[in-house]
Amino acid sequence: MKKLVNDPAELVTDALRGMAAAHPRLRVDLASKVVVRADAPTPGRVALVSGGGSGHEPLHAGFVGPGMLDAACAGEVFTSPVPDQILAATTAVDGGAGVLYVVKNYTGDVMNFEMAAEFAADAGIEVASVLVDDDVAVQDSTWTAGRRGVGGTLLVEKLAGAAAARGRSLAEVADLARRVNAAVRSMGVALTSCTVPAVGHPTFDLPEDQMEIGIGIHGEPGRHRVPLAPGREVAAMLVEPILADLDLTGAPVILFLNGMGATPLIELYVMYHEVAALLSAAGVQVVRNLVGPYVTSLDMAGCSVTLLRADDELVQLWDAPVDTPALRWGV
Amino acid sequence: MKKLVNDPAELVTDALRGMAAAHPRLRVDLASKVVVRADAPTPGRVALVSGGGSGHEPLHAGFVGPGMLDAACAGEVFTSPVPDQILAATTAVDGGAGVLYVVKNYTGDVMNFEMAAEFAADAGIEVASVLVDDDVAVQDSTWTAGRRGVGGTLLVEKLAGAAAARGRSLAEVADLARRVNAAVRSMGVALTSCTVPAVGHPTFDLPEDQMEIGIGIHGEPGRHRVPLAPGREVAAMLVEPILADLDLTGAPVILFLNGMGATPLIELYVMYHEVAALLSAAGVQVVRNLVGPYVTSLDMAGCSVTLLRADDELVQLWDAPVDTPALRWGV
Repeated sequence: MKKLVNDPAELVTDALRGMAAAHPRLRVDLASKVVVRADAPTPGRVALVSGGGSGHEPLHAGFVGPGMLDAACAGEVFTSPVPDQILAATTAVDGGAGVLYVVKNYTGDVMNFEMAAEFAADAGIEVASVLVDDDVAVQDSTWTAGRRGVGGTLLVEKLAGAAAARGRSLAEVADLARRVNAAVRSMGVALTSCTVPAVGHPTFDLPEDQMEIGIGIHGEPGRHRVPLAPGREVAAMLVEPILADLDLTGAPVILFLNGMGATPLIELYVMYHEVAALLSAAGVQVVRNLVGPYVTSLDMAGCSVTLLRADDELVQLWDAPVDTPALRWGV
Repeated sequence: MKKLVNDPAELVTDALRGMAAAHPRLRVDLASKVVVRADAPTPGRVALVSGGGSGHEPLHAGFVGPGMLDAACAGEVFTSPVPDQILAATTAVDGGAGVLYVVKNYTGDVMNFEMAAEFAADAGIEVASVLVDDDVAVQDSTWTAGRRGVGGTLLVEKLAGAAAARGRSLAEVADLARRVNAAVRSMGVALTSCTVPAVGHPTFDLPEDQMEIGIGIHGEPGRHRVPLAPGREVAAMLVEPILADLDLTGAPVILFLNGMGATPLIELYVMYHEVAALLSAAGVQVVRNLVGPYVTSLDMAGCSVTLLRADDELVQLWDAPVDTPALRWGV
């Protein structure tokens, strides 16, 4: 295992120390492994809390800041944060208008965010939750009943964050987040496995001549393994299942081409061209895009395609200012 | 070789097609492999042109836009662009106030930018050049007489781009760029080699238990190979040679922690913490930072540290608006 780490058992804490050092507008609680906007709470505004296992950086802590999340809870690598962490985040960011949890659909996350919501209710904080389950690859999976939450999470967090920044109510922000989740789909491919530092060896074996179509962001099995293929064929294997699942014609579409962590940007742009060409041929109109490693799987090589069937309002929310370590525009 | 590519011989063109599809505010000339601001030229403003071998994305084309570069020339992977490309870029962006070339110090780049400058002069375009040679690792190297240009290039391009945007003359922008280069130092480490797609096998061998300190961004040899070590020891191996080369005390410092392409962000933040702690202990005051994969080496795992001894003016130029695919703030 070749990694830039100290003690693998301290990986998450060490990385959070780095975030604290690099981003003074974040407040990092190392004891609870929670990253909060330094100016939280914002009185009278709905707050957004997300979180999940570490290893997907910049998701989620890299999306904490004006226009997106108010707090993120970092679990151990590929492990759900615990309810106490989530409650600490909730308490830190509640400005009296309620808190929305953005939860990727994995059994541990769902359970722990539910428990935290109960604790928060006991403490008098109004909480709503939205589950993100955008991965069309498989119905159930290793740690999931129902579809997994993957790249679409970024879109839910950005758009709901923008809605909250506009002063909408908790019910309205939650509705919007659910509307985004209902309209977003993703599909990924892995060329290599990833290695959890505390484990020290690759999570799964993937022969030199094969790739896994429909990979999960923790290395969970996808739909099938196929021989390596040119980028344009890989693009079709990712785009077609999405188009089969959701009609994207007649609406403005946001395309997010995500790198899994170890795939260089030059390859992502090759894939962007192929995906854009397929969508154009299918009559899909891409009006906004994002290209880069934003929802990663440690050192996995591969990429995913996320497509949102948007509308004018969602495009405006996408364009709204955001000021976080990983996404920043309009400010 | 596991890569998301089509024909490796078409890699650069395919990636440029992706940039064209993703970024409508760029104009991509596939024939000359030049990326230009779509609104170029800007009459009366100094224009910046850079370029170099591909494989370092987002450097350089990802830095084309308001506040940074006006054009970037993409060579084949790890291969200098040719003079005709550079001349095409120069002609496209000259707004009558002259053009500054930002050239990384590699023999092929230096020669080809010099030839292009002569052609441009013949065409009546005033050109100045700045060489970037910030890598403290080695004095001469595989493709370099003198020090190599690496991560510091990003700082030169950002700060000179901001100076040009403020309407300064060609001589003033060139002076500023040289001042930045004189005050910036870098040092990198590789945990793995990289694989040039058209070659199909790793550029060099690096045993499983070793890393290369002082690596070049094309895999050129560094100072020495050492056994794998914890992140905090690696950080010291990168920071100490820089501090030995340049006094960074008593000035505001900009710290750029760069990923080489295949190192995930969680590891970069671990390294950021260690680097920041070493600098703090050395009495160096970091006032701005950047963390992420910006000057990459295809799928190399590793990172580099770049430190700029800034001043109030340089910090203001760093903070100035920039609107490019890879760096974007203030707009």
